[in-house]
Amino acid sequence: MSDKILFYETDHWDIYLARTQAYLGYCGIYLKRKAKTMSEINPEEWRDFQQLVKKLESALKSSFKATMFNWACLMNMSYRNDPPTPQVHWHFIPRYRNEVKFAGEVFPDTEFGGPADFYREKIVSEEVLKQIIDEIKKHL
Amino acid sequence: MSDKILFYETDHWDIYLARTQAYLGYCGIYLKRKAKTMSEINPEEWRDFQQLVKKLESALKSSFKATMFNWACLMNMSYRNDPPTPQVHWHFIPRYRNEVKFAGEVFPDTEFGGPADFYREKIVSEEVLKQIIDEIKKHL
Repeated sequence: MSDKILFYETDHWDIYLARTQAYLGYCGIYLKRKAKTMSEINPEEWRDFQQLVKKLESALKSSFKATMFNWACLMNMSYRNDPPTPQVHWHFIPRYRNEVKFAGEVFPDTEFGGPADFYREKIVSEEVLKQIIDEIKKHL
Repeated sequence: MSDKILFYETDHWDIYLARTQAYLGYCGIYLKRKAKTMSEINPEEWRDFQQLVKKLESALKSSFKATMFNWACLMNMSYRNDPPTPQVHWHFIPRYRNEVKFAGEVFPDTEFGGPADFYREKIVSEEVLKQIIDEIKKHL
């Protein structure tokens, strides 16, 4: 996730909002410490992550009535570099059976019921990004 | 993951090999207890999962020299049902910079460096599936 806004943190994880909001509330969750694989996440970091999962799922239910959530630790893009530059992070992708209207924008999840399309973009203004963050943070 | 073979288990998780092996060693990891969301995974189940992550990543490095791994908890397909029927499970997708030859088959990861294609299939024989399982289990 290249273009993103830091808006929240826990002891071990930084939470960013993606600037492209094809899925309303799409976040990237980055381990603060350097780590290249899921195997390297330590027990304390897992415990912290577990709490964060609950918080984020609950917050996105409250803020935008998300239907369900995809969680994925992929790191594919970093393997286009030589040498690769993986850094452990999660994609948190709220999914919506019905389109959502927020801040004057419409967010349709055109792939609902199937895999998210990481190449589909929805560019919104800085003001809309700020409103999305404010709405999520109300519930964190 | 509809068509799959149970080949290993931990206290809380069942590990299946996918019958379609577009990504050599592709597994589905299902929580044994009924649970619909990641938020419902309890601390003991997370601890057990954490150990399994290490075991599987290490095993797939040893058995097939996987380059890296995707982990994803999606549950998209179950939302095509009415009512939806989500059950917490992980997709464990070994990814390969170079194609792998095993049991007389060639396994090219044609999407390496980008998202896995969940719709790309590679059908192999029961005998090849058995050999893949045997090879992974040597290292578990």
